[in-house]
Amino acid sequence: MEGELAHIGAGIAALGTGLAAIGVGNVAGNFLAGALRNPSAAGGQTATLFIGIAFAEALGIFSFLVALLLMFAV
Amino acid sequence: MEGELAHIGAGIAALGTGLAAIGVGNVAGNFLAGALRNPSAAGGQTATLFIGIAFAEALGIFSFLVALLLMFAV
Amino acid sequence: MEGELAHIGAGIAALGTGLAAIGVGNVAGNFLAGALRNPSAAGGQTATLFIGIAFAEALGIFSFLVALLLMFAV
Repeated sequence: MEGELAHIGAGIAALGTGLAAIGVGNVAGNFLAGALRNPSAAGGQTATLFIGIAFAEALGIFSFLVALLLMFAV
Repeated sequence: MEGELAHIGAGIAALGTGLAAIGVGNVAGNFLAGALRNPSAAGGQTATLFIGIAFAEALGIFSFLVALLLMFAV
Repeated sequence: MEGELAHIGAGIAALGTGLAAIGVGNVAGNFLAGALRNPSAAGGQTATLFIGIAFAEALGIFSFLVALLLMFAV
């Protein structure tokens, strides 16, 4: 651990983790809006829901990974 | 590893990764909203869903790549 | 490599890459929303989808290019 400026960077990277949550919220929110309008179709779209959440969540985890690396690896 | 300012840059680049998740969430969210309104057409648009996710996800991974380069390559 | 401030700039440029992903997500998301509402017309708009994605994606790649240039060329 060489410098404290990396800690500022880690904090900013954690912001990216939070932004990714907006994307995940869009996916799950639209699913819920549609599923409550047409509940009989909800079961068939569960796989798509998890695919969409997984891709958005992955980007948030990348951002979290950058924060961890900035704190403990650089 | 020459300078610590690059670590702040890496944190800012991770923000871009999170922003890309909003784009991915828009794609998957709109797909789910439409698929639950018209489930019979959802199968035919699955390819478009993955194309849209792939292009948005690619930009997020570019941003993640910049963060990794800033931490370990410059 | 002359200055470390360029590394902060590279991180900020990566932000632009992520922001472009929101644009790509808007294009693909609106296509999917419309295609699922009127599936029979979706095939005729596939070219427009790719044109929209390409132009938005190009701006994200320009932003990525600026980040790369800031890290390795200036």
